[in-house]
Order: sequence, then C-alpha cells, then structure tokens
Amino acid sequence: MSTSAPADRPRILLCNDDGIHAPGIQSLASALDGLGELCVVAPTTEQSAVGHAVTVRDPVRAHKEKFEVPSGPIPAWGVTGTPADSVKLACHELLDAPPDLVVSGINQGPNTAVNVLYSGTVSAATEASILGLDALAVSLCDWSEPQFEMAGRWARRLVERTLDRGLPRGVLLNVNVPALPADEIEGAALTRQARSRWEEGFEERTDPADRPYYWLAGTFVDLDDGQETDLSAIERGYVSVTPIQHDMTAHDAFDSFQDWDWDESVVEDESGWE
Amino acid sequence: MSTSAPADRPRILLCNDDGIHAPGIQSLASALDGLGELCVVAPTTEQSAVGHAVTVRDPVRAHKEKFEVPSGPIPAWGVTGTPADSVKLACHELLDAPPDLVVSGINQGPNTAVNVLYSGTVSAATEASILGLDALAVSLCDWSEPQFEMAGRWARRLVERTLDRGLPRGVLLNVNVPALPADEIEGAALTRQARSRWEEGFEERTDPADRPYYWLAGTFVDLDDGQETDLSAIERGYVSVTPIQHDMTAHDAFDSFQDWDWDESVVEDESGWE
Repeated sequence: MSTSAPADRPRILLCNDDGIHAPGIQSLASALDGLGELCVVAPTTEQSAVGHAVTVRDPVRAHKEKFEVPSGPIPAWGVTGTPADSVKLACHELLDAPPDLVVSGINQGPNTAVNVLYSGTVSAATEASILGLDALAVSLCDWSEPQFEMAGRWARRLVERTLDRGLPRGVLLNVNVPALPADEIEGAALTRQARSRWEEGFEERTDPADRPYYWLAGTFVDLDDGQETDLSAIERGYVSVTPIQHDMTAHDAFDSFQDWDWDESVVEDESGWE
Repeated sequence: MSTSAPADRPRILLCNDDGIHAPGIQSLASALDGLGELCVVAPTTEQSAVGHAVTVRDPVRAHKEKFEVPSGPIPAWGVTGTPADSVKLACHELLDAPPDLVVSGINQGPNTAVNVLYSGTVSAATEASILGLDALAVSLCDWSEPQFEMAGRWARRLVERTLDRGLPRGVLLNVNVPALPADEIEGAALTRQARSRWEEGFEERTDPADRPYYWLAGTFVDLDDGQETDLSAIERGYVSVTPIQHDMTAHDAFDSFQDWDWDESVVEDESGWE
C-alpha cells in the first residue's frame, strides 16, 4: 500500500492531455472540490496520443493560470510539454510538497484496450505511479458533446475510495465512464485491458503543391470476447476500473524461451515486482 | 507462435527512433544483410523519448531515401512522424506486403528498466507486435562514441533465432547489448525489466529575456537487486533479452481490489491474454 498516508487535507494534483483549458479538467476539479488541497498542472495545448512521451531535447516552461472551482480559486500552471512532463515538473519544481494523489482527466473519449498505450491521459497517471504516488486516469467514452458531470461524480467516488484504501505500489487505476444518463449506469466493475487492435487505415491525399500526404484513420477492433474486459464493462453500462502497472515484461512468456540456448537463463521470480 | 511463417526470403522491416540517417540503423541493416528482403522505414528526424506517440492531429509524409547495405541498395523511406507512425505507414501504405519481422534500432543508449516506457525504439517494435508481427528492439548501452558492430552481430544472431522459432503472439524481444569488446561479452541472458526510477531533476535557467525555463535532468536509480533483471545482466557483461508485451493490466493486483465493493467484480482469467 502507498507509503504516503493522506492527511485530513490530502494534496491532489490534477493533470490531463486535452490541455489545461479543456472542459474535462475543469469538470474534474469541480467534482473533486472539497476533498483536499487541489492544484492543476497540465499541458498548455492538447497532447492527445502522445503516449508516454517526455521532453528531453528541449526545455519546458510553466505559466501560472487562473483556475476556479466552486469553493474558490486553486493554484494552476500550464506546461509547454507533455502530460508526463507536467507531472514531473509539478512534483519536482512547482509544488511545495509532493501530492498525495494524482488524477488525470477527464479525457474526452475512451482510453481502453490497446489505446491505453497511446493515451496521454493514462501516461500522466503512469508517471505519477513511477514516482511512487497513487494515481487515477479518468476518461468519458464520448467523442461528441461530452457531459462530464456524471463522469465527475464517478471520479469523486473512486478518488474517495483511493484516498481511503490506498493503491498497491506501482499500480494506478484507469477509469472509463460510459456515456449514459446517470440512471442507466449499472455501477462500477473491476476489469482488465481487452485484447484489441486498430484496423488501420491511412488516407492518402494530395496537398496544393500536388505532393502526397497521409492521414491516420482506422477502425477499432475488439479481439476479446471476455466479459471481464474494459470494453465489455462499458458496453454493458458499467464504469470500467482497470488496475494498470508499468512493468511490460511478458512474464507468462518466459517458459517459451527456455529452449533458446541462453548463456544465462533465469526463472522469473513473480514476487519480484510489486 | 507467429502465424506468418517466414519464407526463404523473409521480409524484414527496419525502424528506429534516432532517425533514418543515424549510424545505428545503418549498422543494423548491414548486419542483417543476406537474411532476407530488407527495407527501412524510419523517422526523418530524431524521435528519442517519444514513447508510444502516434500522430493523429496532423498528416505525415514519406520520402524515398537512398540506403545501401554491402549487397547493394535496399528500399527506404523517411517518415515525418514518430517510430510508431513509421511502422503503421510502412505496413499499411508503403510496403507491397506486410513484413515477417520488424527490427528497431540500433539505439544509441540503453532501453532498460523503466526507460522501456519512454523509448521510441521499443515503441516501434511494440507497434509491430500490436499489428501481429514478430519484432525486436535493439539498443547499445553506450551514449558516447558507439561502436555498433558488436551489437549488430548480436542483433543478427537473435533475428536468426526469431525467424527460426517465432515469438509468442503479442510478445516482442527488447535487446540491450553492453558496450564491451567482443571477447568480454559473456553471452545472452533472458531477463525481466528491472524496477527503477529517475531521481529527477529539472535545471531552472533564465532565457535572454529573463524568463525562466526548465530542463529535465536526473539520476537513474536501480531499485531492484534481482540478478535476473536487464540492468543486472548488462552489468555482468551479458546481452539482455527481455520479452515485452503491451497488456498493462496489473493482473497480480486484482486480489487487493476485491473488497472495494464492486457492483460487478471479476476474477482474472490469466490465460485470457496470450
């Protein structure tokens, strides 16, 4: 469990990948108002699909921003970098003390299945988790005209639970809320990332100077018929909550490599990664 | 195992994150010369630390490039995007037929431990793996004046083995070669990603107009005393080979969430992800 037991007024850092001026992070901040000392450190501009990018070749800058929740103004900075940059800069430079919890979102559009890898929203929470902090990523499964209020209420419920219970070390929660009216949401379900992929898709077009360019397009394909997946939960009207970690080792695949004549072969200690 | 049984002349796509003009990808191509039909599709410019970024808001372009290996010229394209973009565009638009194998590298600098998440080199191989292709990422643990020849020989050995045996579905190999003379490399070891983090680190500086900016800096910290890790293998003179997958679900953490009063709770089917 987390080493940092939140005080009566836990410090909660908010981040996202849609940018500090996006409506989703405003809704998230308003929804969490009163739960602790809120502050916002988020990219100045939209950073969707940046994955776990960090800015190493160039400097980043931070600018103070105005940010209001119902109870009043809260500290906020816009960062000229990625979501992961924002969390790093917040924890190391901008905040007086490290946060007890990092919440990223509310993203416009789902971050489920293979899209977890591409997600800037999740990467902010992953970065927090690497830094040893409890973290949640929250997304609303609606691309069009999102109504964030219901997702905000679920975010608050899960943040309260996280502050109460703590998370296992190195584990964050990836929350996806279906785009349904309040009374049609069945509840919350503990899920796993569905196997899936994109059937892509580039559109080849020609620019005014007659030079070709390509634009990524595609159809998402669910390859998983399990009921316990994030995709299945959302389809059935549940808020999907997936515990996520950042060890990418394919532990289950070790056996299949034992006959590769290694000069040194190891037997995985499953308890090694907590 | 992989569904695409390589022909006598397997199609091998090369990518990287240091850019198509970097010496590492040239060394990789030369090292693999003769193993099959090689082609190169890689970013036009350096894309280090982009993680699994994909370009969705902007178009990408591809330009034919000249690329020579000892046996003659091979097809090559530079792509104005990320490593993941390059693999997608290669497989969907640029190549006549999908490759049998994707090899990413040779990266200048290690991609071990938590750095796997930030790595553009690994993300190219991960993207290939998501697309259902066998893939390897190859890095040389040397930032200064890398001599890629030895890493190229190890890449060839592991590519031959992969073509011969195939990889489990959804699993790629992350290869890190220590910066040692040939006769000091002990062999290859099957490893897992070490637990680690960065003790960061931003340097605050002031620009000519007296405005502050921040530059990411830090010290890497190995938190793992296991002998079976990628970091330990390299330290002991072994080529580290880590099987990597892209399911980020924290399967081992499910039990700790069972008492969270889920409206629907699942018991993980460990066999669900292959």
